[in-house]
Amino acid sequence: MLVRGEPVVRGILEATLEELASVGYGALRIEDVAARAGVNKTTIYRRWPTKQELVAAALRSVTAERIVPPNTGSLRGDLLETGRHMAEVMGSAQGQALRRILIAEERNPEFTDIAQQLRESMDALPLPVIEAAKARGEFAPGFDCVLIFKTLAGALQHRLFMERQEIDEGFLVQLVDLLLAGAMAPDRRR
Amino acid sequence: MLVRGEPVVRGILEATLEELASVGYGALRIEDVAARAGVNKTTIYRRWPTKQELVAAALRSVTAERIVPPNTGSLRGDLLETGRHMAEVMGSAQGQALRRILIAEERNPEFTDIAQQLRESMDALPLPVIEAAKARGEFAPGFDCVLIFKTLAGALQHRLFMERQEIDEGFLVQLVDLLLAGAMAPDRRR
Repeated sequence: MLVRGEPVVRGILEATLEELASVGYGALRIEDVAARAGVNKTTIYRRWPTKQELVAAALRSVTAERIVPPNTGSLRGDLLETGRHMAEVMGSAQGQALRRILIAEERNPEFTDIAQQLRESMDALPLPVIEAAKARGEFAPGFDCVLIFKTLAGALQHRLFMERQEIDEGFLVQLVDLLLAGAMAPDRRR
Repeated sequence: MLVRGEPVVRGILEATLEELASVGYGALRIEDVAARAGVNKTTIYRRWPTKQELVAAALRSVTAERIVPPNTGSLRGDLLETGRHMAEVMGSAQGQALRRILIAEERNPEFTDIAQQLRESMDALPLPVIEAAKARGEFAPGFDCVLIFKTLAGALQHRLFMERQEIDEGFLVQLVDLLLAGAMAPDRRR
């Protein structure tokens, strides 16, 4: 039960992900999604008039819609919580299916817009955390605040999929402290 | 001419990568590599007695053997140079073939040892840079020095393959400065 929302919507989006993972975007047919979800295809068309809209909604249901921006009162607490959410999504069966779908479709021009929409929804996620940290004066001046979240995501993906190691709390704390405080000895900074 | 070494060795390793990218590890046959490289298969067996050794050597020829540890005299200079090398390898045709091979084989148990060897050779790469920076007293005390290189690699992969954006010098400088100095305002540090 990883996709949020009403049970019918959830069932359709889960069936869409399963079909995508099994046949790819090009061969995906709304009637097959309907059959897999056990609904009439008009139920799908009513809500998502095109295949592109349906697939975009299914991808967002795994990512943007599952990651609730945290509000712990500190940038460090929010980064740790964001990292925990990201790690949970990346490690879930649906997150892994999503990753395989993105990789399989990365050279498919039909899929470019969908991937771009997904990126935009992901980029918007940390904005409340960034605004709150700015209001508390936590960021160093002149800093590109979005970069820290992208670097966090990249480091977690590298850990899970290249190093094939678990993301435990100890690793997450080290990574967040690297992103917040940097690796350089204080007396050596410019 | 991205693979180093004698022309015959280079030809065999390039042919191995091409075969791997086209048929996968399970179906790869030494005789097909030999035919593609235009050599006798005994030439291959003499140097790499098993398919596993040949494939491991081909993967290393794209990664560990192409990335020369820099020695610019500062950690910042060395990180920038390492980032440039990584970006060049990841963006090259052979780097992209390697990435697709690793993804295609990631659930193949026969491939586990080869992927592990590749990881170990990659992990060893930054050690000279780390030693030099430690000798200059550049790292903050108690810091896990390897983490900075893994985070650099993860952030570059995320930029290229998730965001589909170029790694230009401006991006690299921002990323390296994040890893060295952190995102947090100096007066807010613990």
